[in-house]
Amino acid sequence: MNKNIIKKLQDIVGAKYLATAREDLMCYSYDGTGQEYMPSAVAFPGSAAEISSIMKLANQELFPVIPRGAGTGMTGGSLPVAGGLVLVMSRLNRILEIDAENQVAEVEPGVITGQFQSAVRKQGLFYPPDPASHNFCTMGGNVAECSGGPSAVKYGVTRDYILGLEVVLPDGKLLHTGVRTAKGVVGYDLTRLITGSEGTLGIITKITVRLLALPTHKKTYLVLCDSIRLAAVLVAEILKSGILPNTLEYMDQTALHVVNDYLPLELPHNTGGLLLVEVDGNERSTEEQGEKLLKLLADRQAYPGILEVRQANNDKEVKDLWKARRSISPATFKLRPHKISEDVVVPKTKIPRLVDFTEKLSRELGMIILTFGHAGDGNIHVNIMLDKNDPEENRKGETAKRRLFEYVMSLSGTLSGEHGIGITKAPFLGLELDEASLKLMRNIKKVFDPNNILNPGKIFAEHNDSAAKTLKTASSP
Amino acid sequence: MNKNIIKKLQDIVGAKYLATAREDLMCYSYDGTGQEYMPSAVAFPGSAAEISSIMKLANQELFPVIPRGAGTGMTGGSLPVAGGLVLVMSRLNRILEIDAENQVAEVEPGVITGQFQSAVRKQGLFYPPDPASHNFCTMGGNVAECSGGPSAVKYGVTRDYILGLEVVLPDGKLLHTGVRTAKGVVGYDLTRLITGSEGTLGIITKITVRLLALPTHKKTYLVLCDSIRLAAVLVAEILKSGILPNTLEYMDQTALHVVNDYLPLELPHNTGGLLLVEVDGNERSTEEQGEKLLKLLADRQAYPGILEVRQANNDKEVKDLWKARRSISPATFKLRPHKISEDVVVPKTKIPRLVDFTEKLSRELGMIILTFGHAGDGNIHVNIMLDKNDPEENRKGETAKRRLFEYVMSLSGTLSGEHGIGITKAPFLGLELDEASLKLMRNIKKVFDPNNILNPGKIFAEHNDSAAKTLKTASSP
Repeated sequence: MNKNIIKKLQDIVGAKYLATAREDLMCYSYDGTGQEYMPSAVAFPGSAAEISSIMKLANQELFPVIPRGAGTGMTGGSLPVAGGLVLVMSRLNRILEIDAENQVAEVEPGVITGQFQSAVRKQGLFYPPDPASHNFCTMGGNVAECSGGPSAVKYGVTRDYILGLEVVLPDGKLLHTGVRTAKGVVGYDLTRLITGSEGTLGIITKITVRLLALPTHKKTYLVLCDSIRLAAVLVAEILKSGILPNTLEYMDQTALHVVNDYLPLELPHNTGGLLLVEVDGNERSTEEQGEKLLKLLADRQAYPGILEVRQANNDKEVKDLWKARRSISPATFKLRPHKISEDVVVPKTKIPRLVDFTEKLSRELGMIILTFGHAGDGNIHVNIMLDKNDPEENRKGETAKRRLFEYVMSLSGTLSGEHGIGITKAPFLGLELDEASLKLMRNIKKVFDPNNILNPGKIFAEHNDSAAKTLKTASSP
Repeated sequence: MNKNIIKKLQDIVGAKYLATAREDLMCYSYDGTGQEYMPSAVAFPGSAAEISSIMKLANQELFPVIPRGAGTGMTGGSLPVAGGLVLVMSRLNRILEIDAENQVAEVEPGVITGQFQSAVRKQGLFYPPDPASHNFCTMGGNVAECSGGPSAVKYGVTRDYILGLEVVLPDGKLLHTGVRTAKGVVGYDLTRLITGSEGTLGIITKITVRLLALPTHKKTYLVLCDSIRLAAVLVAEILKSGILPNTLEYMDQTALHVVNDYLPLELPHNTGGLLLVEVDGNERSTEEQGEKLLKLLADRQAYPGILEVRQANNDKEVKDLWKARRSISPATFKLRPHKISEDVVVPKTKIPRLVDFTEKLSRELGMIILTFGHAGDGNIHVNIMLDKNDPEENRKGETAKRRLFEYVMSLSGTLSGEHGIGITKAPFLGLELDEASLKLMRNIKKVFDPNNILNPGKIFAEHNDSAAKTLKTASSP
């Protein structure tokens, strides 16, 4: 990126909000995947107008622009794979409005999801999407990736809460999509086209979300099973019984062991799988669901492998159970220094088959593969543990990943429930999408971004090389 | 449409499934708007493969193709405004699969929505979208228009239940979108782009929907108020109290009177507005919500204008209450022979202002304007009654419509909650959408349908004339 461009960027955002020093750039060169790509510069814009000017400049000078929230993404969505300018959205961090009466709020993209949840909770309202990283990740990143979380089994994902967006388009024009009302079907659904588009179609500068009334009650349970297979069977049985929990998470034995070292759960030695179940609602509905659940789990003739059912008796105990769930991902690094982390989804009834498959694959390849995640909606986090510096492990890891994806496809599943495609799954897109889909998506990208300057190299693998090639000349640092 | 094309169409679908006689064409020339446009021919295709061949022919010969469900649409989505071939989807009417364990079903577009609801109900499952026309309208039409209904206040609209689609694209290629799983974020969201696109982007040939467990209990109430203003205030109060009804409908005095003539409700003479409230869920949740509602409504010091609260005691009484709600629309024709029927949405708290506005407008123009509909989500059906053969009334009707839309915009509302834009609202699209949106939407249409042969003249008013002009030569009957 030449000095002339840097000067123009400084003029737009102010010199103090543009970083070019190597040590500053490094902070924005990586994300949740552990991969690193150095940007040419990093800007911290303060308004949609500044972003608009940046995009106009980027179209003149043809350098890539990569929007970035908190960098917690799991597929490389915010990585500057072709260099260019990273736009850090942290200054656009205001909750602009919480309209409690209409159950609608408007936020800027840099608002931390967990902080937004707390703010609406104070007014008796509820914003359900709860990615594991909710204390760090941002609303803008959540919309770009269409994030999920444990509550999705009952409440759906980010997409289901986005009513409208303000977006700076790749050409710098400002776009307003959607509505401020509960319903709306005016023209094509640009709101949901941009939600989950991984920062490739526009830069989100405002988000209108719908809110629910906060459930008044909840009950949290831990179910210890002698096998992961039983845990998977119970997931299907619980849902079939008519209980709709707001959390139905599971961990396999390996996940359990790493968590247990980290945060002792005092598990019986033969625990082979664990379910975390939470039900919420009004007082009596929660009671009824809790009783129904306990009754189902008390049938030890049907389920002799249930070792124990624990109920959290107070807020501290609930927090501890959740801490166990949320600590799995970081705790896994005790096993191996790196991992390939996938978030495949299969029809709920096929979870036992997926679990059998990963266990077999683990034995066959001699690798640790652990599974945990959102069993209630079939969204399983498969962690393939490895040391990236070992070429043999790396190769086996890639084999495991490809075979996992192929098996998931054979179960009518999908490659990603909530992490998106980014760069890590881009080479596998053709496993899931037909030619007609890929062609339409690429053409839609061209409609929004004819010069391919906004977050190039993401989602579409074939774009990768050509985008990188085209842009490298313009953006070499 | 020349004989050569007709012959080719007969070869594709079979002679018995192609109609060209004027009396046959007439049956497919109108829809719920009461407007009429004669098609050049009507085909009843039996498979996606046949539709694909038709689209390839249409691209060679440049004639318009207009997909049609049951013709219950309220904005002209299925009208052949530029002539051409109407594709009636009634032969694609199979429920292909109900996977009760995974709570997923697959249907063809010609399945009647109400029949699908009954079929899943038999398996303890629930497909919530319930447009007033659910006994006639089709699943394909519902997806194309993103239909809603009374249950949307709690359960959302059609969009929220569509997991994936099979679509014949305008060029004849077959497209598969979305997933069969509860979650999925792979590439751009073509499923929701096509849902609500009013048959302009592709012809839906299969629909994968998600289902819920059927709520086991419900309670239905009728609340008689002395004014429509009080009814509107109660809507906000009920939702604020934390009750989330599955129905929260209202009728104004005029709507009440026409219904009452049609189906006596034995209303007190001073009834000025009515609420139909239904709560559902598990046994105890329904009880708790019902008690909470009755307690709120019993506070006659706060709400002295509540005249009476009736509770349905059995299925017959529930059916009668619902019959009253569903009969409003046909019953209005007692007042005047025609109407302009709009489905605007405003933020819930602004319903009283909208009601005041329509009453004032009615007095000012000397026209009957009645309102009823889905108060719980702010989606108000405004019926402007008139005689179309009276030029003066017609003119005043158009004035009322424009002023209604402008006022709705000033309340941060939207032109359509569930009926779409079609042809009737196309001239007003610019009131709601900015230039950037319109340009993107038109370009997306071009990506899907470069020759503008699929349902031309819908949504985009400016397209209307040119589309009609371009196509008339090719399609003159």
